[in-house]
Amino acid sequence: MPLITPEHIANTKIHYGIDQLEHASIRQLVMMISDLEAVTGVDFVRMELGVPGLEPAPQARAAEHRVIDSPLLAQYPALNGNAGLRDALSAFFKSFMNLSVPADNCIPTAGAMQASLAAFWLVANLHPARNKILFLDPGFPTQIQQVQSLGIAYARIDVFAQRPRRVADQIRTFLEGGDIAGIVYSNPSNPVWNCLSPDELKEIAGLCDAYECIALEDLAYFGMDFRVDYSQPNQPPYPPSMGHYTHRCIQMFSGSKLFNYAGQRTGALIVPEALMDLSSEQLQTRFGHATFRNALLFGIIQPTTAGLCQSAQAGFEAALRAMLEGEWNPLIEARAYEQRALKLKSALTEHGFDLLYASDGDTPIADGFYFAFGHPAYPESGLAEALIQFGISATPLTDAGAEHKHGLRACVGLMTDDDLHRIKGRLAKFQEAHA
Amino acid sequence: MPLITPEHIANTKIHYGIDQLEHASIRQLVMMISDLEAVTGVDFVRMELGVPGLEPAPQARAAEHRVIDSPLLAQYPALNGNAGLRDALSAFFKSFMNLSVPADNCIPTAGAMQASLAAFWLVANLHPARNKILFLDPGFPTQIQQVQSLGIAYARIDVFAQRPRRVADQIRTFLEGGDIAGIVYSNPSNPVWNCLSPDELKEIAGLCDAYECIALEDLAYFGMDFRVDYSQPNQPPYPPSMGHYTHRCIQMFSGSKLFNYAGQRTGALIVPEALMDLSSEQLQTRFGHATFRNALLFGIIQPTTAGLCQSAQAGFEAALRAMLEGEWNPLIEARAYEQRALKLKSALTEHGFDLLYASDGDTPIADGFYFAFGHPAYPESGLAEALIQFGISATPLTDAGAEHKHGLRACVGLMTDDDLHRIKGRLAKFQEAHA
Repeated sequence: MPLITPEHIANTKIHYGIDQLEHASIRQLVMMISDLEAVTGVDFVRMELGVPGLEPAPQARAAEHRVIDSPLLAQYPALNGNAGLRDALSAFFKSFMNLSVPADNCIPTAGAMQASLAAFWLVANLHPARNKILFLDPGFPTQIQQVQSLGIAYARIDVFAQRPRRVADQIRTFLEGGDIAGIVYSNPSNPVWNCLSPDELKEIAGLCDAYECIALEDLAYFGMDFRVDYSQPNQPPYPPSMGHYTHRCIQMFSGSKLFNYAGQRTGALIVPEALMDLSSEQLQTRFGHATFRNALLFGIIQPTTAGLCQSAQAGFEAALRAMLEGEWNPLIEARAYEQRALKLKSALTEHGFDLLYASDGDTPIADGFYFAFGHPAYPESGLAEALIQFGISATPLTDAGAEHKHGLRACVGLMTDDDLHRIKGRLAKFQEAHA
Repeated sequence: MPLITPEHIANTKIHYGIDQLEHASIRQLVMMISDLEAVTGVDFVRMELGVPGLEPAPQARAAEHRVIDSPLLAQYPALNGNAGLRDALSAFFKSFMNLSVPADNCIPTAGAMQASLAAFWLVANLHPARNKILFLDPGFPTQIQQVQSLGIAYARIDVFAQRPRRVADQIRTFLEGGDIAGIVYSNPSNPVWNCLSPDELKEIAGLCDAYECIALEDLAYFGMDFRVDYSQPNQPPYPPSMGHYTHRCIQMFSGSKLFNYAGQRTGALIVPEALMDLSSEQLQTRFGHATFRNALLFGIIQPTTAGLCQSAQAGFEAALRAMLEGEWNPLIEARAYEQRALKLKSALTEHGFDLLYASDGDTPIADGFYFAFGHPAYPESGLAEALIQFGISATPLTDAGAEHKHGLRACVGLMTDDDLHRIKGRLAKFQEAHA
């Protein structure tokens, strides 16, 4: 017996102008589920929004308190951020990724969101012919929205389209066209948690060098591939990065997930010196500034936000320093997500669901923040809406450029033991109804 | 005897790639002066950056502290902001401007900066033919940078070009071209502190209705025209607004100046219902969302910042409520700027400088946060650099679209009594050198 009637769902869909849940954005889905909870009184098991469920560093809270009591509240932040935060970012990338990037090239941003916006905007305007962004899917639909809103052309590759995986071959075909400015991927990825391997990254790096293309490495989930322990500073193993093989790689970093800081909107754009110093006529024409650095600071950071919130900068810096100094380690704490994913995957498979994208090349995909699943009764679409009737919400993969468009993304960020207990009862009812 | 040698100035200009100070951005100038202070040890009298110099509301600090200790740090803000902040913004505009805007149409942004970015981006994409923004100058150069970075066409009018002022006639010529989507102005204006009068606004509002154009009202300095006391809620006089005459008007609001909150990056976009509900094919094509509201939230707010910092939202809300409840009144406190401007203007005129843009139509321009001045020895350019030699910094008006391109903008935000004392000695030396 479903908890939510089809009428409730239909009314909410009408309110948000959604015909099919497969075509709603994640944020629309989130608002819809919140409304359904309010109207029906049903407490959903919510897996739809990628929200961290652990605690920020105590050092971060303390640093924010200090700024709140200081004169900094009234003072504009520098466009390139506070020197202390830039230093901490540079030290972090050295210690935890073995990348040397000058502090002045580690620019604080409002989440990885503003970082990727800036990266797409700049990279697609470096050269008159290379004006297109290539996405390695499955990926994060909001990045597609970013290039669409900016009027930047794009193309997409599903890295799972070939077995065995031959991502470099897929990319080469596009690069030969001569119009690709940047290649975007996330390690691990939202939504299916796959990772490109060091060998794959090395091969793609070679292509970037050959075709003067720039890799845009989304590290919103830095180090959270729990198949390997990346938690110890200044020693291998380090998370794989295109930056290990080429200078044509920009990192987009986030305070939101790993540092449990989503609410304060912190992140950074990490730019190697070779790119930061680059200058082009096309940049001058578009932004009125010829160098990458000036176009970034005066042509993008200033006109979008004019710099990052002072107290949030201090909090982010303190979290990075706590990690660097061994006082607090979010890569160890985030192992909680691994355990939650393991349990949730079991609950789903025990009740007739399938795991999608279960392996990454030859190896099983890591248990982490996200995973993808489907159900044989919904080979095309309809699974998200069917689960909502039973008080469970998850995000359709439709817009992720994934092959398995019928599947859903589960996020374990907010999953408590109580949620895991409740979902089993609801999944049992779902199974009964689909027997 | 100058404090700063021409060599020091030349070296710093080279470092920032600046040929002439008249062509530097304000932020570049700020960095340059900071460097000169560091290198020479001279403590400048700094009038170049528009920085508030008063205290934030204690209630704002307290509210931020509460959020810093709460689970909100880890939770993504809603794209349309916190309900409490939206309510406070709506109540503020009712009480202090006599405008009724539904709370759901008061969208928090990262300063007026993100608000104007969003406004330009949307308004220029509502209709295929109306794709140009018209600026009423003298104005804020960063807004020109915004449309340039977005690739939006624009035109500029100097409202002081005709005497007596006939702004509506100047505008009509452009509107007849059929391609103007929005008209931007600031009351009072950065950099010369002029205001459009209620009569002027009413006439322009009629044109906006006739030509389906949208007024973009920059209220970064809300109520700070100190010729009139706008500090009492729920009673006239109210600051003039195009919103009193037409629904085709969007307000761009800021927490930075009036609320002394520049560091935390708070502001809002205030959209009348008639515009928020608007839908167009052009919006659908550009943003993938047909309505103004969805294009704003999912096509701009999400892809730029994904919402506003949680603690900053709470601080801004608390400041607005403190003002609404009569516990704290920044419009009374900001009268300090009026006094500083009065003293600084006297010091300049007593030492051979001219005030520019001294009257606004028939009445003297208000003493406030900014004013413009020049010097007869520099009828074309060079005044900014000449003053730097004497340890005084101010911003060239070049990029403001002003007629008096040789003039400088002074900001009294950070001006202390000590600064006023020091500047007199330096101005005396400047006068001596120019005798």
